[in-house]
Amino acid sequence: MKISFDELKAAFKNVLLRLSFTEEKADLCAGIFASNSRDGVYSHGLNRFPVFVKHVQSGHIKPDAEPVLVERNGIIETYDGQLGPGIYNASVCMKRATTLAKENGIGFVVIKNTNHWMRGGTYGWQAADDGCVSISFTNAYACMPPWGGKDARLGNNPLVIGVPRREGHLVLDMAMSQYSYGKMQTYELEGKQLPYAGGVDEAGELTHDPALVHKLQSALPAGLWKGSGLALMLDVLLTALSGGKSTAAIAAAGSEYGVSQCFIAINSPNLHASLIEEILAYTKSSTPVKENGAIQYPGENTLAIRKQNEAEGIPVNEEMWNKVKNMLH
Amino acid sequence: MKISFDELKAAFKNVLLRLSFTEEKADLCAGIFASNSRDGVYSHGLNRFPVFVKHVQSGHIKPDAEPVLVERNGIIETYDGQLGPGIYNASVCMKRATTLAKENGIGFVVIKNTNHWMRGGTYGWQAADDGCVSISFTNAYACMPPWGGKDARLGNNPLVIGVPRREGHLVLDMAMSQYSYGKMQTYELEGKQLPYAGGVDEAGELTHDPALVHKLQSALPAGLWKGSGLALMLDVLLTALSGGKSTAAIAAAGSEYGVSQCFIAINSPNLHASLIEEILAYTKSSTPVKENGAIQYPGENTLAIRKQNEAEGIPVNEEMWNKVKNMLH
Repeated sequence: MKISFDELKAAFKNVLLRLSFTEEKADLCAGIFASNSRDGVYSHGLNRFPVFVKHVQSGHIKPDAEPVLVERNGIIETYDGQLGPGIYNASVCMKRATTLAKENGIGFVVIKNTNHWMRGGTYGWQAADDGCVSISFTNAYACMPPWGGKDARLGNNPLVIGVPRREGHLVLDMAMSQYSYGKMQTYELEGKQLPYAGGVDEAGELTHDPALVHKLQSALPAGLWKGSGLALMLDVLLTALSGGKSTAAIAAAGSEYGVSQCFIAINSPNLHASLIEEILAYTKSSTPVKENGAIQYPGENTLAIRKQNEAEGIPVNEEMWNKVKNMLH
Repeated sequence: MKISFDELKAAFKNVLLRLSFTEEKADLCAGIFASNSRDGVYSHGLNRFPVFVKHVQSGHIKPDAEPVLVERNGIIETYDGQLGPGIYNASVCMKRATTLAKENGIGFVVIKNTNHWMRGGTYGWQAADDGCVSISFTNAYACMPPWGGKDARLGNNPLVIGVPRREGHLVLDMAMSQYSYGKMQTYELEGKQLPYAGGVDEAGELTHDPALVHKLQSALPAGLWKGSGLALMLDVLLTALSGGKSTAAIAAAGSEYGVSQCFIAINSPNLHASLIEEILAYTKSSTPVKENGAIQYPGENTLAIRKQNEAEGIPVNEEMWNKVKNMLH
């Protein structure tokens, strides 16, 4: 089943208005949820919306909270997100970072006590639409063992890098686990093995078995010791700079709320666009492994899906769509 | 064979003085080469010094060049490295970044037309010794196929993140390939397979065979599609911001010189040190996979080797050490 962006967004917005979101905040949050589905990230669009609503109802997400500036260190600004909606706080912070970047070349905003930003790529696209290069990252609940360990102690701590480009922005949206648990669940439900190792077994050996990884909560860091180290360092950067909750503190709270995030924007009046094309052309000139295969840059597939969904409507999971519509009765 | 830091540094310095390095520049470069060996990174210490000398003799590295400021965009500064020694230029840029950070909270320095910085970790330690958090990265010669391709088109583009800490800095020094070619050569020479996949074969399947990866120049990006995307984005950031050579241009030149680098320093008077300890304690509490195993943080092993080498002397490859000593006759 396919529906239009406007219909999807309107449903989200009406639900949020009933949850006492202001008109402006409901519009922004509904637009981001609808955009995530439009861009093919259904797991953080429609399919995540009911969980978001539950967190609002349980009080972990506070609709009326606004981020508050708590510290200014040179041009670096630190906010307290006051447990407001993560997508709202993240949009506000990235907007502030791009504003600062237009004054200083660079903007650097850190926020603590915020909530899940859903699709990290959202803020990379936002900054790129605003003409800025950006780097942003978040911490998260513990879901991966550190390299050499068995028990989950690291968040998948997504890292997002965006670069504006007339022909289509480059946006890398990369969690530190090789696969998300959502992706692994798809394989598990189909009774399939993962194409590449996705976790470690009880003995610490790599495994392709999604059910085992799910059971042990032993998702594999992308690049083994490398992703393990990077996930740790991102958590350290976020926590040391913001004074907010680390993955350790988020895990101790027993539920993923009150996370820490960082938004860096760079405004360069002299971005060398022709050199970006040179890099893409060179990279794409590598002979594809598969016949008729193609090398894609980060963001290329997102843009293709967006165009298709804009033309043909956004595919929705009917069960999820009915769930949202029922919230309006 | 083991020798002292002072002896190693003095030999390097004397060679560099003969190559018409100034007293100051010879001292700094010799100190960094000796420190790299002292910290256990022999591949970018003594064992790399003869290659460095060759590049000076061939004119790819210009001893008398100084980085020149070519653009200021707010607090972002762009330099032209004029093909000076990479380790000198990188030290100067990181020093400038930490100085800017002490004025503005953050310092951001980009450099083009510079040379190999040897061990990236050097500049993470430098900034941390100066009390600053840092993020730095460089591009490099094409040595990895992008994900889905066969031909090398991406550099291993190391990323370095450093965080100061009284008990020992945290420094992640992470190239984007799962293994370096140097590491794979060690396995190849011993006739051993790699413990984890290190490249792709002719059909694009993962392989543990170091000789095959060497032959095909098909090093595996760490995290498969993830490291591939990150390596690409770092090259794009560097090139788009600096206007310098991309990996494509470096490869076209046929030899790795004139690379681009970025140095970000953050000076936070209110770094939450106790929260860093909380993260490390939590991460280390994961049950080790191996009996008597331990989870290490990035930089922990470096510090342990440094202390041992300071106490017992620095192990040197005798052939390499003789090569350097012969340069003084």
